[in-house]
Amino acid sequence: MSTPDHAEMANAIRFLAADAVQKANSGHPGMPMGMADVATVLFTRFLKFDSSAPRWADRDRFILSAGHGSMLLYSLGYLLGYEDVTLDQVKAFRQFGAITAGHPEYGHVSLAETTTGPLGQGIANAVGFALAEKMMAARHGRDVVDHWTYVIAGDGCLMEGLSQEAITMAGHWKLNRLVVLWDDNAISIDGQVSLATSEDQHARFRAAGWNTIAVDGHDPEAVAAAIEGAKKSDRPTLIACKTVIGFGAPTLAGSEKTHGAPLGDVELAGARAKLGWNCDAFDIPAPVLSAWRKVGQRGRVERQAWDDRVSSLPDERRVAFLAALSGALPEGWEQGLIDLKTKAVAEKTKVATRKASQMALDAIAPFVPSLIGGSADLTHSNLTLAKGMMSVLPDDASGNYIHYGVREHGMAAVMNGLALHGGFIPYGGTFLVFADYARPAIRMAALMGIRVVYVMTHDSIGLGEDGPTHQPVEHLVSLRAMPNLLVFRPADIVETAECWQLALETTTGPSLLALSRQNLPCLRDKANENQSARGAYILAEAADGVRDVTLLATGSEVEIAMSARESLAGRGVRAAVVSMPCQELFDAQTVEYRRSVLGDAPRVAVEAAATLGWERYVGLDGAIVGMKSFGASAPAADLYRHFGITAEAVAAEALRVVA
Amino acid sequence: MSTPDHAEMANAIRFLAADAVQKANSGHPGMPMGMADVATVLFTRFLKFDSSAPRWADRDRFILSAGHGSMLLYSLGYLLGYEDVTLDQVKAFRQFGAITAGHPEYGHVSLAETTTGPLGQGIANAVGFALAEKMMAARHGRDVVDHWTYVIAGDGCLMEGLSQEAITMAGHWKLNRLVVLWDDNAISIDGQVSLATSEDQHARFRAAGWNTIAVDGHDPEAVAAAIEGAKKSDRPTLIACKTVIGFGAPTLAGSEKTHGAPLGDVELAGARAKLGWNCDAFDIPAPVLSAWRKVGQRGRVERQAWDDRVSSLPDERRVAFLAALSGALPEGWEQGLIDLKTKAVAEKTKVATRKASQMALDAIAPFVPSLIGGSADLTHSNLTLAKGMMSVLPDDASGNYIHYGVREHGMAAVMNGLALHGGFIPYGGTFLVFADYARPAIRMAALMGIRVVYVMTHDSIGLGEDGPTHQPVEHLVSLRAMPNLLVFRPADIVETAECWQLALETTTGPSLLALSRQNLPCLRDKANENQSARGAYILAEAADGVRDVTLLATGSEVEIAMSARESLAGRGVRAAVVSMPCQELFDAQTVEYRRSVLGDAPRVAVEAAATLGWERYVGLDGAIVGMKSFGASAPAADLYRHFGITAEAVAAEALRVVA
Repeated sequence: MSTPDHAEMANAIRFLAADAVQKANSGHPGMPMGMADVATVLFTRFLKFDSSAPRWADRDRFILSAGHGSMLLYSLGYLLGYEDVTLDQVKAFRQFGAITAGHPEYGHVSLAETTTGPLGQGIANAVGFALAEKMMAARHGRDVVDHWTYVIAGDGCLMEGLSQEAITMAGHWKLNRLVVLWDDNAISIDGQVSLATSEDQHARFRAAGWNTIAVDGHDPEAVAAAIEGAKKSDRPTLIACKTVIGFGAPTLAGSEKTHGAPLGDVELAGARAKLGWNCDAFDIPAPVLSAWRKVGQRGRVERQAWDDRVSSLPDERRVAFLAALSGALPEGWEQGLIDLKTKAVAEKTKVATRKASQMALDAIAPFVPSLIGGSADLTHSNLTLAKGMMSVLPDDASGNYIHYGVREHGMAAVMNGLALHGGFIPYGGTFLVFADYARPAIRMAALMGIRVVYVMTHDSIGLGEDGPTHQPVEHLVSLRAMPNLLVFRPADIVETAECWQLALETTTGPSLLALSRQNLPCLRDKANENQSARGAYILAEAADGVRDVTLLATGSEVEIAMSARESLAGRGVRAAVVSMPCQELFDAQTVEYRRSVLGDAPRVAVEAAATLGWERYVGLDGAIVGMKSFGASAPAADLYRHFGITAEAVAAEALRVVA
Repeated sequence: MSTPDHAEMANAIRFLAADAVQKANSGHPGMPMGMADVATVLFTRFLKFDSSAPRWADRDRFILSAGHGSMLLYSLGYLLGYEDVTLDQVKAFRQFGAITAGHPEYGHVSLAETTTGPLGQGIANAVGFALAEKMMAARHGRDVVDHWTYVIAGDGCLMEGLSQEAITMAGHWKLNRLVVLWDDNAISIDGQVSLATSEDQHARFRAAGWNTIAVDGHDPEAVAAAIEGAKKSDRPTLIACKTVIGFGAPTLAGSEKTHGAPLGDVELAGARAKLGWNCDAFDIPAPVLSAWRKVGQRGRVERQAWDDRVSSLPDERRVAFLAALSGALPEGWEQGLIDLKTKAVAEKTKVATRKASQMALDAIAPFVPSLIGGSADLTHSNLTLAKGMMSVLPDDASGNYIHYGVREHGMAAVMNGLALHGGFIPYGGTFLVFADYARPAIRMAALMGIRVVYVMTHDSIGLGEDGPTHQPVEHLVSLRAMPNLLVFRPADIVETAECWQLALETTTGPSLLALSRQNLPCLRDKANENQSARGAYILAEAADGVRDVTLLATGSEVEIAMSARESLAGRGVRAAVVSMPCQELFDAQTVEYRRSVLGDAPRVAVEAAATLGWERYVGLDGAIVGMKSFGASAPAADLYRHFGITAEAVAAEALRVVA
């Protein structure tokens, strides 16, 4: 029994992929078949990993940005002996309950460093991974942080604008440990890539500060030489791997028809004949499987050596390193926030909640070294820079503040990479209206359940003169509708501090803070308990505890509700004011708590945003004071008046619903 | 009184801009001051326009992609004698009711060809404008279509990923009549652009198939020579104009501090002294104003000659050209749709609504020559290609189908440009989940109120195995929350045809069709009236007209509601089924109509999407059957069962609410 050659190793990937797609009667065989050679070279000769320790912190990261080729990953998982990817899982590809989902999902298969599928996300996440590696190395030393990030990306990833944001960041930060293996097969779904684009990818990447190499993606030695070359570069590297999509399929190879549909029994049999793969579906010849399993253990010694190095680090370094990797917040980290709240209540501090957020960050940052700030070129507007934070620079990655440039989408996707890599808790700022630019990456964070925090300021018409292009209207409800995202809209400095605490303590998903440009009074008179933790609470009960009406509000409109309450009191109407900084947390409370807060009286909600969604709390008999259109350009006070988001309007609606 | 020199002409722009920002106490003086020289050269020597005929169809288009520099546009408007931009309007910059909004708004000032401000949108719209010009010329002839598209873009626009999608399209289509004047001032909001990026813009644009030129943006002859050069190129041209932000400000020129805040009285006075501008705020020396006004009339003769050429076109050409420019649908265009519906009802045609959409397009396209199809590389999945449509190619722009590539955002922004240019009714396809990628451009279409149609297929977990990365959940409510966007989710082939008709007849804003991947039965038994026009209607009244419960549904879940109705009947519960293909249209109906549809009985809504928002129709006492989380990867039937979106679940909720 001879040692299997490269072709046999690669064919094992090819046919597992094609067989699984055939069995599922759905999926994408073309990419795994085309990139099997490249993946074989990468995994057998370069990638540092140990299949028995999938979460080893110093492993090289492999990101399948072209996520539709998920069977490439699952084939590798099974072949390499990853415990979770059994042959049964491969056979259950795309079936209910299997971890072998249509696109690789983080948390399902251990080899999926990130969830991919929506194009461009993986390559942008990878920039975050590579940046995290560089930053971790700067903080903790090359003796314990010494790994690479490899990406397989297709033409689709490279056409998405997100990829441009990502590669210009990677080039700027000189992320030389990032290697993108481009599946240069000249095919996309509509047909030839040349139907839709003519760009010179090499020139484009070089313009962004990358090294580029072109190879025949079916020539293993050429691919190996290219990766060797990449490893010597002082810049990130693009390796264009010229491949044939659906390599081996006798009549369909090179056609978009292999992209997203099973080959069919005849074509698949033809591929077996053509490539000399003489075994049944899902069968791998024992020598080939055994060779792959050995590859899976290739990194074990190195991993054990690393374990030893970490164990023998001086105490201070070891503790700091492991603490960063753990993701845990240091004991007592919230003390600064508590002090801030206490002082704010005592002094009735009136500030914009974006400013309150900066004060909160000032209070948090010294205690949480993992915290990594940043903004998409709105640092002085988002107020995301905490005292003492230092910029992360291309030649000095020891800082903790990132200038993402005008790249909201790239920022959010890089933050996902930072969080997934481990060692960091990233937050990043932009205007709330530009959440739209980042939305696909925000969704990925929510889907993956990772801790990132979006600091989104200028959260309503309250930003004033910049006008409707900059005034969010539909954004709050749009974000609240996204599963597993916490949307916070604090009403004052105390709630802002509370929401920051909740955001950092939420490790199961992202949080978004919607913050005001305009100043807001301190509404709370005590700060001992984190009242925002239950999502909504009674800020001011009705006089005598008997409610005629309940006013619900968030953020800058809580002040308006309080003022309406006072004016209603003058007319003998007893109103309670409920502040609702986080609907998602409120919806998760017990029925009893929710009833006690909402009460039995008719309800009026006020929020300077689209009204859709508030019916959940006010029902058909309540009223909602909000925006019914886009905003306008004018000073904020004029806009609130024009759009009728005033205490008078709230009081009028209250009188109407109690009548 | 001598003829004013270039510097005086440019200073008139500079100081009008700085004065207006100062008076508004808000705005962006840095860009207009920096780019005044470039704009002066462009408008005085190159741009083809006639300020007395702002909508002249053959005018050159000028797009201020760096929309924060809106005062550049307003200054030009006033100086050139555009009727709408009076000096009072300039003085009312950013005030309520003024047309001189914080960012230029389409429909407010005639010089605003498109609304800009969100970065990257303008340059991408401009690609649509230039493509429209090329396509119109191919259809109607160079004798009547012969204009250029000029863009001023800043570093922010070029950092946005959207700009990459846009420039690669422009390069691919060889849009040589597109000229981007890049305000290369090396400053963004956080400070030096080099804080965040190191890319070589020239190399990047060349990689995308552009011609590039670099000039001193304060040297008018150099700028003029560059534009001359651009006009000779066979490719689109980037002109990098090296400028000083806030040019003329004595201490702040060159600093990000001039970007987004008034200069202050002292600095402004200093600028006046430095540049020798010896007049009061808003005063323009008579010779300068007079010279600018003459520039405003520069194109009048040319415009009149064009009018004559159009008038003397052969009848057939003239009629076709004017019909395209009018945007009107040809008489009888809907006949094919009516035939399709009649046949579908007779044959009970069961097809996916994406397929029904293609059948509708087949029926429409032959009658509507302005219709321009396309897809972001999902043509065979979105089914956006109608019979007989021909691809728009770099060397032959006479077709009517655009391969946008994997560029959802760019597609939507280019569609905005096509619609704004005039002559075309664009529609474009992607998966509904990727509406997120295009969202900022969709919002601009809604804000501007222009007719574009999004064909968004694979609209729920019904797409099956591709899994949660591809399954929209929160998208429907997120899009419904956007002002002025019609979201259609038809239930069968008949409704699909109806919704297409409504989308094309809606000239005041964009429409989005959410369409199924899976087959859906024909539910309607007549097709004489467009029932979707009222947004919701009673598809099946309760037996005997007495309702115990009303079931509300959209799209693929209407079939489920019908099945629940039947099962409820078996238990003696009389249910009506309301199909609600468009909530926005329903909300616009009379109270009486809405009441008659919704009825007085308790209500249960069913939609395979986030439940948020349905409370608007079912209230606090109703029930909603929908998605409470992200989806999963499995065959569709398994997912519907797993997530409980079934007739049984609807019936159970109905029994609960009627109890």
